[in-house]
Amino acid sequence: MHSVKVALGVRSYGIWIGGGLLRRLGEACRDLDLGSRCAVITDSRVGPLYGRTVLDALQRSGFEPRLITVPAGEPSKRLEVVARCYDRLAAHRLERKSFVVALGGGVVGDLAGFVAATYLRGIPFVQVPTTLLAQVDSSVGGKVGVNLAAGKNLVGAFWQPRLVLCDLKTLSTLSEREFRAGLAEVIKYGIIHDRAFFEELESRLSSILRQEPRVLARVVARCCAIKAEVVGEDETETGGRAVLNFGHTVGHALEAIAGYGKYLHGEAIAIGQVLAAELSARLLGLPQVEVGRITTLLRRAGLPVGVRLGLDQRRRLLAAMRLDKKVQCGEVRFVLARGIGQVEYGRAVPHELLNSVLSTTVPS
Amino acid sequence: MHSVKVALGVRSYGIWIGGGLLRRLGEACRDLDLGSRCAVITDSRVGPLYGRTVLDALQRSGFEPRLITVPAGEPSKRLEVVARCYDRLAAHRLERKSFVVALGGGVVGDLAGFVAATYLRGIPFVQVPTTLLAQVDSSVGGKVGVNLAAGKNLVGAFWQPRLVLCDLKTLSTLSEREFRAGLAEVIKYGIIHDRAFFEELESRLSSILRQEPRVLARVVARCCAIKAEVVGEDETETGGRAVLNFGHTVGHALEAIAGYGKYLHGEAIAIGQVLAAELSARLLGLPQVEVGRITTLLRRAGLPVGVRLGLDQRRRLLAAMRLDKKVQCGEVRFVLARGIGQVEYGRAVPHELLNSVLSTTVPS
Repeated sequence: MHSVKVALGVRSYGIWIGGGLLRRLGEACRDLDLGSRCAVITDSRVGPLYGRTVLDALQRSGFEPRLITVPAGEPSKRLEVVARCYDRLAAHRLERKSFVVALGGGVVGDLAGFVAATYLRGIPFVQVPTTLLAQVDSSVGGKVGVNLAAGKNLVGAFWQPRLVLCDLKTLSTLSEREFRAGLAEVIKYGIIHDRAFFEELESRLSSILRQEPRVLARVVARCCAIKAEVVGEDETETGGRAVLNFGHTVGHALEAIAGYGKYLHGEAIAIGQVLAAELSARLLGLPQVEVGRITTLLRRAGLPVGVRLGLDQRRRLLAAMRLDKKVQCGEVRFVLARGIGQVEYGRAVPHELLNSVLSTTVPS
Repeated sequence: MHSVKVALGVRSYGIWIGGGLLRRLGEACRDLDLGSRCAVITDSRVGPLYGRTVLDALQRSGFEPRLITVPAGEPSKRLEVVARCYDRLAAHRLERKSFVVALGGGVVGDLAGFVAATYLRGIPFVQVPTTLLAQVDSSVGGKVGVNLAAGKNLVGAFWQPRLVLCDLKTLSTLSEREFRAGLAEVIKYGIIHDRAFFEELESRLSSILRQEPRVLARVVARCCAIKAEVVGEDETETGGRAVLNFGHTVGHALEAIAGYGKYLHGEAIAIGQVLAAELSARLLGLPQVEVGRITTLLRRAGLPVGVRLGLDQRRRLLAAMRLDKKVQCGEVRFVLARGIGQVEYGRAVPHELLNSVLSTTVPS
């Protein structure tokens, strides 16, 4: 088992990474000084697969879990579902030391985390991510929240989990498409922080795609360690944490205008990263050969690297970007790369350049 | 003008107290490094009285305010109204440095504060309380939130304002009933923290009821200073901050079972304080003469000091108390007094005693 620490003072916590960890959830929670009542929030796809194992593990350690199942998919990340969860927590009489377990992918983690962050002004929560995307990204770092009609993640909080438990065996039940979508974030860590890791991904991609246990464990642990380091230096994104958003400005906007559900998050982010790489070449001199390596690795991972947009879609995409949380003084800010492994955040991109890159360089 | 500082490290802020301060809101905000766009959340009663003054003050200082008016009254403290506010913030394109101004009483402050705490994972907000209750209590300390059908304030956050501006002139437009309700919290500060202040209230009650400006300014400032001291020592209520809940365990439950709106918050709290005093006499030896002084002062302030409950209502009241956020291991916890000015928190009260005090000692 790998273990990574997220160092945030009194809010520090550990990430456990390994095969077959679900059964050990109860013992892991026993060390955290939690109340006995808890709610396991999961979705209609993950619940039937792993709900029983998780409830048993908690009960064996003396906890009193209640299962709350929401419909699978991005539409559950909305306020009406949050409200239904609150009502269930009240009915189960959760108290301040009671806790919420998020069992599922990014949608469940973001939703359950927001519920935990705001119920009784905040109760503890534990992340049990079951997708690659959630294991390497969304379950770590404390960003939780839901969508509005106006945009993705516009409502939320910073609320750190007390523990993140990544059972790599849960990844075997992902569809190939979902597993590949998670690789978009894995590749991102190489681009923003670690050129050697990027090169390792280039050379070991086929082992990763076959989910070879030891390679996979190493990759997930490395991603978590990078995220932990970035988050540890800037918990609430007043500065450097923004580098994690490489590819996300366009990616989020693309998800919004396409209608949630058309693209998996990782797919939209893959397209966003290619676009950010193109902008980086124009504005920061990212060598064209590195733009090519980024695009190639994403494509080899089976991810989309472009989208053809009509005039009207481009207009809607630009409008959606202006609702991004990273907007300052009305100007959209980007994370851009000087080279693989070296990025800068908060870069303003002239509207004309953005429009031109959107209309000319993105292949369909 | 009086000014009080709430010392919370990087989250420290000032409270300004004086007559005619609304006009100075813009200049006060200019010092806070805020973005130019902001939303003023108010209600249908306060908006027509003071909305124009506040918008003008902000515009004169270069801000771009947008007014959001919610229906007056406790029912606005609910998730559907929160959702409508989010949509308005998105439409006005608020950014991370944009801010929310809460203009109104406790309901508006709690609602607007929760909106600010959760929009874009938290944006700055400024409290402009216009009721006595909000000025001395709810606007200070960062507790924000809304109600669920299952109970009051079950959803919320700790989110400190960047400034609290108390214009005492706004109190002149309160009904006498509302002003008197605010006195329940004023009297509470004497009981929990400052015997001399309690005695000052006993001797100067008639000047306070006449709203003599200098007396009123002193009283509001003293309450804010006590609250600032308590909050400064325990921001998120892991311990001593709980003393502020004297009278609130029963008070909240009473509001819940009576249907929000029957009692003003201060009225329910007044009854709760008398009950807490009776429990204190039985469990901590609070002298009966001090129970009498507490009851008398509340009654002189025009507040209810009892309620007659039928068997069924008593049962519902006890059930509502078990949903209180201060419940631990299923046991309801109380703040109780040894003497006026000296309280203890986290006291378990045996169910039989609670039931007996509820059924016998509370006059109608």
